[in-house]
Amino acid sequence: MTSVSVDPSGEFLTLRSKKSTYRFHAIWLRDNANDPETRAPGNGQRLIALRDIPAETRVMGVDLKGQTLGVCFAPEGKVISFEVGWLEAHAYDTAQSTQRGWTAPEIETWDSKLMCDVPTGDFAQLSRDSAARSFWLGQVCKFGFGKVVNGPVEDGALFNIVDLFGYVRETNYGRHFEVRTEVNPTNLAFTGLGLQAHTDNPYRDPVPTVQVLYCLESSAAGGENMVVDGFAAVKRLRQENEEYFDVLADHCARFEYAGEAGVCLTSRRPMIELAPDGELIGVRFNNRSMAAVTDVPFDKMATYYAAYRRLGEIIDDEAMEVTFRLYPGEGFVVDNTRVLHARKGYSGEGTRWFQGCYADKDGLRSTYDAIRRAHSLEAAE
Amino acid sequence: MTSVSVDPSGEFLTLRSKKSTYRFHAIWLRDNANDPETRAPGNGQRLIALRDIPAETRVMGVDLKGQTLGVCFAPEGKVISFEVGWLEAHAYDTAQSTQRGWTAPEIETWDSKLMCDVPTGDFAQLSRDSAARSFWLGQVCKFGFGKVVNGPVEDGALFNIVDLFGYVRETNYGRHFEVRTEVNPTNLAFTGLGLQAHTDNPYRDPVPTVQVLYCLESSAAGGENMVVDGFAAVKRLRQENEEYFDVLADHCARFEYAGEAGVCLTSRRPMIELAPDGELIGVRFNNRSMAAVTDVPFDKMATYYAAYRRLGEIIDDEAMEVTFRLYPGEGFVVDNTRVLHARKGYSGEGTRWFQGCYADKDGLRSTYDAIRRAHSLEAAE
Repeated sequence: MTSVSVDPSGEFLTLRSKKSTYRFHAIWLRDNANDPETRAPGNGQRLIALRDIPAETRVMGVDLKGQTLGVCFAPEGKVISFEVGWLEAHAYDTAQSTQRGWTAPEIETWDSKLMCDVPTGDFAQLSRDSAARSFWLGQVCKFGFGKVVNGPVEDGALFNIVDLFGYVRETNYGRHFEVRTEVNPTNLAFTGLGLQAHTDNPYRDPVPTVQVLYCLESSAAGGENMVVDGFAAVKRLRQENEEYFDVLADHCARFEYAGEAGVCLTSRRPMIELAPDGELIGVRFNNRSMAAVTDVPFDKMATYYAAYRRLGEIIDDEAMEVTFRLYPGEGFVVDNTRVLHARKGYSGEGTRWFQGCYADKDGLRSTYDAIRRAHSLEAAE
Repeated sequence: MTSVSVDPSGEFLTLRSKKSTYRFHAIWLRDNANDPETRAPGNGQRLIALRDIPAETRVMGVDLKGQTLGVCFAPEGKVISFEVGWLEAHAYDTAQSTQRGWTAPEIETWDSKLMCDVPTGDFAQLSRDSAARSFWLGQVCKFGFGKVVNGPVEDGALFNIVDLFGYVRETNYGRHFEVRTEVNPTNLAFTGLGLQAHTDNPYRDPVPTVQVLYCLESSAAGGENMVVDGFAAVKRLRQENEEYFDVLADHCARFEYAGEAGVCLTSRRPMIELAPDGELIGVRFNNRSMAAVTDVPFDKMATYYAAYRRLGEIIDDEAMEVTFRLYPGEGFVVDNTRVLHARKGYSGEGTRWFQGCYADKDGLRSTYDAIRRAHSLEAAE
């Protein structure tokens, strides 16, 4: 049985539903009105600014009919309807997560046990079937990476992967970059050396939030790809030693890449990035482009280096890593704010030719959410 | 007179130079070694990871010759040279900024008094003269926006502006978007309505960090462009009321845009974004795309709304705004993480045709820094 009461001040109302009891402020309710004068019916954008709503806005009266709550606001004398389900879904009178390093409910951290169950999509199916695409994108959101198999083996095929969800982020490396052995490489990624697991381009701000790597030739020995869940690594660090977690979250590292003419990229960002309420939202880890750290006070630098070392050890732990070999026509997409990637060393015998490019996560999440929204609308019809 | 001493523990050394006295940890010095085994001579990337440096690294001895300091590290027995000037420039044994909302020294906040001195570059000069381009980019970094005049009046001319410093960030709006009156707009920006000063696309994560707007036709009455320094607005808010500043910095807002098929963009980020050490690094403000705020506890929601209202009033204050009219062949570049932009309403009489696109700040800053580096190398030769 749902019921509503208004505080005598008119500043908030209290909604008691089957689910719970929530209070909502008058100004919050008025600002979130969904009537056609407040929000454009077609595109949902708010037509007014907060300046158009009186600061002294109060709830004058309420009228609950079934699951629809009518609220009358003073001094405007405006009546707005809210669905009880919408209010419950947007309630803020709730317990907030407080432990630093919490992650959103849609995220599932993992370790090497995921090896048997790497999220994988078939290129043709992903291209034609939006349900399959939605499922695969959901896996990428959940685990921070996903493989694609049975794609075309041709120059530029990686752009077909990006087309599944978003847009290429062009950089000084081009719209895409070639990953094969070079004699005078401008970047170590273009040698046959093994690379420690890392996130790409931490010297960029914003970093590219998605990376795509795609295999066109792979007959050289070695060169397997590895991924490590940076969020799992950081959570493990915190479990082992909270001070280590805090020192990496509370101070900025510095990153730099200036290895070619006309390029001088620098950034000042923490290795562990938290939202103001402690949500873990990003990891930056890259030994090659880490610059001198100058934003840690002298008294904390020894702890900072111990924490940086321990995080590296956790990342290097085989129990954390998922390894797979990509064959021509296969690629993977990685959330570059969360999942580190690496490759094993490979020999000059035979060939290894990958192409890589960057894209952004907002496009990926938008595509995923839009397909789900369309499917739920269809289901409701 | 420069002198150096080593702590008996070997954990750090103390450098006394004309400038000041600084301590440096052994592990920090070793990690920042610049010898060809530690860093690749060509591209400057670090060739080793922290795991390759013993945790028990100590300074065994030092040898100062002029302005070059030789340091011998145990247990590797490795001797590395450091320039005293480099050490001074990267010293971390210093007082750190502690007041929340501090800004980097290269940033200068402004108000309407900047109107007489809007940073402006001539398109032809910017294109051919790297010193002029560097000066203009420096102004954009300092003030967060800059005008370009005397550009070509042709479809796509805005891409020539982006070519001066970086790369287009393609989104669901395309590589560029048209800004002219539409009958059934998917976005309010495409109507003749005046818009409150805002940052673009806060529902994207990462937001596009640079926006370019370029004028191709402008015979309609009104439609002037305005910019407001979001950093100045936020600093003023803090001066007036620290609690208001804190509540907007300490809690995430929510933003959403789902106004067209296949698009469902959402983000959870604060209006005032700080680095972990309190540096002001971003402002998000957009009444049209603000979604229901659900990450502020009930007890703070009234203060949150009062702070949001006050920030809006400061942004709307004419004393904060710089207004200019763009004519065909003129455009402006704006740092979308800092400077809000707006346009006055315009009438349907005559025409108003702008093109807009997004780009990223790391490319802009890289180009600026690379030109300066090249010029200082030339000057040194």
